[in-house]
Amino acid sequence: MPELRKDPITGRWVIISTERGKRPSDFARESVVAQGNKNCPFCYGHEAKTPPEILAYGRNGSGANTPGWTIRVVPNKFPALGIEGELGREGEGIFDKMNGIGAHEVIVETPDHQATLATLPDRAIEDVLWAYRDRMLDLKNDKRFRYVLIFKNHGEAAGASLEHPHSQLIALPIVPKQVREEVDSCRHYYHDKERCIFCDIIRQEMEAGVRVVSENDYFITITPYAPRFPFELWVLPKLHGSSFENNQSPVYASLARMVRDTLARLDAVLDRPAYNLMIHTSPIGEEINDHYHWHIEIIPKLTKVAGFEWGTGFYICPTPPEEAAKFLREAQVGAPQPAR
Amino acid sequence: MPELRKDPITGRWVIISTERGKRPSDFARESVVAQGNKNCPFCYGHEAKTPPEILAYGRNGSGANTPGWTIRVVPNKFPALGIEGELGREGEGIFDKMNGIGAHEVIVETPDHQATLATLPDRAIEDVLWAYRDRMLDLKNDKRFRYVLIFKNHGEAAGASLEHPHSQLIALPIVPKQVREEVDSCRHYYHDKERCIFCDIIRQEMEAGVRVVSENDYFITITPYAPRFPFELWVLPKLHGSSFENNQSPVYASLARMVRDTLARLDAVLDRPAYNLMIHTSPIGEEINDHYHWHIEIIPKLTKVAGFEWGTGFYICPTPPEEAAKFLREAQVGAPQPAR
Repeated sequence: MPELRKDPITGRWVIISTERGKRPSDFARESVVAQGNKNCPFCYGHEAKTPPEILAYGRNGSGANTPGWTIRVVPNKFPALGIEGELGREGEGIFDKMNGIGAHEVIVETPDHQATLATLPDRAIEDVLWAYRDRMLDLKNDKRFRYVLIFKNHGEAAGASLEHPHSQLIALPIVPKQVREEVDSCRHYYHDKERCIFCDIIRQEMEAGVRVVSENDYFITITPYAPRFPFELWVLPKLHGSSFENNQSPVYASLARMVRDTLARLDAVLDRPAYNLMIHTSPIGEEINDHYHWHIEIIPKLTKVAGFEWGTGFYICPTPPEEAAKFLREAQVGAPQPAR
Repeated sequence: MPELRKDPITGRWVIISTERGKRPSDFARESVVAQGNKNCPFCYGHEAKTPPEILAYGRNGSGANTPGWTIRVVPNKFPALGIEGELGREGEGIFDKMNGIGAHEVIVETPDHQATLATLPDRAIEDVLWAYRDRMLDLKNDKRFRYVLIFKNHGEAAGASLEHPHSQLIALPIVPKQVREEVDSCRHYYHDKERCIFCDIIRQEMEAGVRVVSENDYFITITPYAPRFPFELWVLPKLHGSSFENNQSPVYASLARMVRDTLARLDAVLDRPAYNLMIHTSPIGEEINDHYHWHIEIIPKLTKVAGFEWGTGFYICPTPPEEAAKFLREAQVGAPQPAR
């Protein structure tokens, strides 16, 4: 018998196939393997193909927009939103609109076209996290913005148009409804119980153990109780924290190790799947609170979203999260590769 | 400058590329063309490959589960939900679950493996609508169910696993959150204004004209003001009606013509794209009301949903709905094919 499960944070029900769960080998998909770096705008020597850099790490004296960097942040050449101008809010009869003001940046994670966040050294991944943080802190000074999303599309099936390892950042002039609902749901829970719902979930998951994938000093990776997608993963800080950008430096070092470990397990079990990775953090202006618990969500691209999901918001997950967690927990993950 | 637009029903903001809108030819995709009917479980003579039929039209004396039908409804062989049993609601610590009770049926729309809803005769499409209605009315007698979704995945990119023309029906023991929110939003609007929000939208769209694709006696097809996807379409009854299954017969005949016309326009402009089609109707037990306006939503599969959408619930639509409507409105759509 399939099972209906409810996510306690979003209130979203999902359908879990508990009996005939699909094993990793049942998903038809292509492995994400970088093919080549010819004409890649994110490789050394092609810096002029992107808009001028906003931030670069590792320059050691090399000039802006030349090779020599280890991480490079540039405006998206085809931005979803425009950085210049006023919001221009107005009505149009029954409808509401405003100018598409926002920031859309690309974080080039490494000069190495073939690398991934599962194979880079921990220290290089940590620098990517610091770059995320630097850009978030800078963009929060712009009073027009209300929310910053950092995300990564890995592989063409996950929506990536370039294969060179990169993440993206979008700053928005409004808090997205889905984010607002998630934060508000956590606030209501806190008002009711004087406890953070994520902290409660972490306690229960650590006790149950069946959905735990991996754990280190500051982080735990679990498969959520009511996942939308097979092998969906949440990377959660074990201690309460309401925003990604307000952490002590050992936390980022620990997160770098956990991100690499988690993605290496995904690569091992699902043979380098395409995935989306999103940082969930508090909206601008309400960063420090007791109710919201920042975290990372990772969704491998294994199934297609179809009419049933679009029509209801319900998701059918063909792999129980307990089975996915078991596969991932038992994966043989080696030590990180040495720095090249 | 891109534009942020808000859907007045769901409250969802979307980003519209108003300046560099993608034309139909800019979307890389494969046309949906049926390849062959070898071993197709929905073709004549293969009736034993499906579970026994629940409903068939056109039999004229032919025996159940043999050829001779024009439309055939069978249980899904790989159902997302199980039809037998009790709901068994229970808690699991902080989590909630229940048994996955529901109905999952397949409506085989025609014996013709190569046909589509854009090429079938109007009368055959009307019969498909009557089959939808018959199944909805029957399932509403099952007191365990709260919502019935009828949907169609056309083409592999839209999630279809079989190419023979078919729709699906899922009856659920709960009203999905997304449906509840849409209906509640309409109810609040009605309480506020004593008008249906969809009726208001239809009035405004008919006056503006720029997003109107097609119109007949009972229906109008528009591109919504704040679409999630390029070339998204809504087929709306012009007169207020709160549920798909409670209409007079001329309405279904008119809808059949409008569905064919709309899908033929999509085929002409986008060269037979994959799409999802969903019927939005009132939940069971609240079918007759003044606030909710049943309709059909059609989303061609032209773009990939990626990290930004999953992380925020925001959608980036690369084609303004006004441009999409113009392409579709001006498409040359022939008369329906004669019955074969």
